Amino acid sequence: MSSSVITASIMTIGDELLIGQTIDTNSAWMAQQLNAIGIWVKRRVAVGDERAEIWQALDEAIVSSDIILITGGLGPTADDITKPLLGDYFGGKMIVNEEVLEHVKYIFQHILKRPLLERNLKQAEVPDNCRVLINKNGTAPGMWFEKKDSSSEAKKIIISLPGVPHEMKGLMKTYIIPELTTLTNHQVIIHRTLLTAGAGESFIAEHIQAWENNLPERIKLAYLPNYGMVRLRLTGKGQQGSDIEKMVDHKFIELQQLVKEWLVIESDEPMEKALGDLLIQKNKTIATAESCTGGYLAHLLTSIPGSSAYYKGSVIAYDNKVKEEILQVRNNTLKEYGAVSSETVLEMLQGLLAKMGTDYGIAVSGIMGPAGGSEDKPTGTVWIAFGSAEKQRTISFHFRFDRQRNIQLTAVHGLLNLFKFIQSES
Amino acid sequence: MSSSVITASIMTIGDELLIGQTIDTNSAWMAQQLNAIGIWVKRRVAVGDERAEIWQALDEAIVSSDIILITGGLGPTADDITKPLLGDYFGGKMIVNEEVLEHVKYIFQHILKRPLLERNLKQAEVPDNCRVLINKNGTAPGMWFEKKDSSSEAKKIIISLPGVPHEMKGLMKTYIIPELTTLTNHQVIIHRTLLTAGAGESFIAEHIQAWENNLPERIKLAYLPNYGMVRLRLTGKGQQGSDIEKMVDHKFIELQQLVKEWLVIESDEPMEKALGDLLIQKNKTIATAESCTGGYLAHLLTSIPGSSAYYKGSVIAYDNKVKEEILQVRNNTLKEYGAVSSETVLEMLQGLLAKMGTDYGIAVSGIMGPAGGSEDKPTGTVWIAFGSAEKQRTISFHFRFDRQRNIQLTAVHGLLNLFKFIQSES
Repeated sequence: MSSSVITASIMTIGDELLIGQTIDTNSAWMAQQLNAIGIWVKRRVAVGDERAEIWQALDEAIVSSDIILITGGLGPTADDITKPLLGDYFGGKMIVNEEVLEHVKYIFQHILKRPLLERNLKQAEVPDNCRVLINKNGTAPGMWFEKKDSSSEAKKIIISLPGVPHEMKGLMKTYIIPELTTLTNHQVIIHRTLLTAGAGESFIAEHIQAWENNLPERIKLAYLPNYGMVRLRLTGKGQQGSDIEKMVDHKFIELQQLVKEWLVIESDEPMEKALGDLLIQKNKTIATAESCTGGYLAHLLTSIPGSSAYYKGSVIAYDNKVKEEILQVRNNTLKEYGAVSSETVLEMLQGLLAKMGTDYGIAVSGIMGPAGGSEDKPTGTVWIAFGSAEKQRTISFHFRFDRQRNIQLTAVHGLLNLFKFIQSES
Repeated sequence: MSSSVITASIMTIGDELLIGQTIDTNSAWMAQQLNAIGIWVKRRVAVGDERAEIWQALDEAIVSSDIILITGGLGPTADDITKPLLGDYFGGKMIVNEEVLEHVKYIFQHILKRPLLERNLKQAEVPDNCRVLINKNGTAPGMWFEKKDSSSEAKKIIISLPGVPHEMKGLMKTYIIPELTTLTNHQVIIHRTLLTAGAGESFIAEHIQAWENNLPERIKLAYLPNYGMVRLRLTGKGQQGSDIEKMVDHKFIELQQLVKEWLVIESDEPMEKALGDLLIQKNKTIATAESCTGGYLAHLLTSIPGSSAYYKGSVIAYDNKVKEEILQVRNNTLKEYGAVSSETVLEMLQGLLAKMGTDYGIAVSGIMGPAGGSEDKPTGTVWIAFGSAEKQRTISFHFRFDRQRNIQLTAVHGLLNLFKFIQSES
């Protein structure tokens, strides 16, 4: 890997991350944004609301990275210690920033419509040695510090951001990404990812071993198994204007050929996006009938902006009565074969398509656990029906994970199977 | 804080975490488990599949923590470098472990039913200076190393685990938590969390300032704002058998009194769990009708094990036709007031309750963005109806975030409002 690539560390501050009370989704988003402008994230670190811990993590990050992005600890309450700490760390003193002060007053008066407290005015205090980034979506400003590393004499950039996701994102988009781009406009990091289904990572690795061994040093291959499928990602780092993008694209086409037997999609997008694109392309519509996934399949499909163009709706038939009354599953079918059976999901699908009038549908029923399994149908047993009014298929799975994971796997395999079904029609 | 508390670092290995391709949910779960047995997580760090980076992160973690838990990089492909690196780091050489070998063979033959490749046999190779932890859910074993820290002479424990969540969890539950518990049976970390709605964090902080300033040093208060609500968490650290648990509980009761005006639930659980518990307690049932949330509300409710006791189903009426045909919303209502209106969600709720026959229901309709807004009803406009066949209420919101966030906020506020509605009935 080229050593001329600009590197970043992402640092997250807050005890809630250390006790497992919240899951950090900010860092993944920030890493994507940095990668897109050619900055390589070397490390992510989460520390608690403890002065000594934050200080030490800063010391380490400044040595190893060119840019440090910090989120969290900027609120108005006593557990938020980031701002005075950064003032001390960079040897500044706290002053009131008039622009921030006006902004805080405006937000309380016109947006929050809440009384402005003394401690909220404190939000306008910033160290006098940082550049202030006005936060349009909240009261805590971003802060941009610069410092010479004592050992290397290199200039380091340290940016502090609020931890609230949409506030952090607003500051990243408005100030930080545009400015960092000017520093890095000679570097590029190229990712190309494809999705396979039907082969394990070992099997694929064996199959493409000779090709992988001959990859140029600047291009790295990663295997990302998930949901019983495997994503393959090529990453190339190099100078803008060099042939790195062309090289990665070339290798990516070779890879697609090598794994074509298991290839599902040639991009790094979730199944619900790939299925949505296919439906738009074919001008078709879809609906879903869910028992065990309880709305997760519908949620995945509708999490894609613009999905109302092809997604019409869903019947969540958690109770068998709903299966009978809205989806017209016959009482006899439920009695004879049970709610988790090929027969039931097929009737759910047929009832759904009749009710919703869509071109395609998916129907699922299963036992997600922890309770509800039997010897005959253990926890993790799932039946999925998919297809159109003319042609339907059913398939069964035996997942052996926890409830959340079983729900996710069922939904993703529903999407995958309908995707392959529609592809096979053309 | 007592310095006698045993500390841990959690280290995650894999480029996918640094480029934002995956979100790390393992670390939060591990931190919860460690906290529950009195181990304080000082730091979480994510590094890439780079030897030098992993080595340096290990050096730092060994100085600062007593226990280091490592996940990732144990797969059978070339990008997985953790195992040989740990062998080198601790000065061991690689040997075949017969028990792991038998286990790998068994898994391929009986569970995966795939041909066993040379590279899979490599999974049975481990450094000769670690204790092997057999992974019932997969082929990569866990590894337990011990090392004296050169500066402090203290014994450090370093444990390597696969990154696949259910494999990591299996090893944690079977070996690691039980064994670490024996090391820490004189320490406790107590968390108590409550949820408030209706006041900002600054306002609450002001209101409880005198009380907060008088908290004993061993007890810490944290403010966790999210979804327009604020969670308050008390954390106490101390010796088992000391009065720390009693002290935290005592302070927690005081806190509940102080914030009772805004108090929603006195525990750290999501709204869907609190609502579910309330429904079980009152022996009542619920159904949902969703437009803009597209199944997310149903997904939250059904993500709770045992929810089939009170949750009957949902109609996801993304298309207005579904609102009319299944939920019996009048065409005139849609024409006159629009799909996003008090009138429409009220009819959705009434139609839902008639169709599903449940005691309570929630109906939502809104514009989640990025497209779909108008001057009259901008993106983020949401109407929610909630109640019973006898009594319904509607409420509107104007969220101003991105699509995912708007969907989450709508769902959580639907749950919150029905929760308060049911509480107010008694």
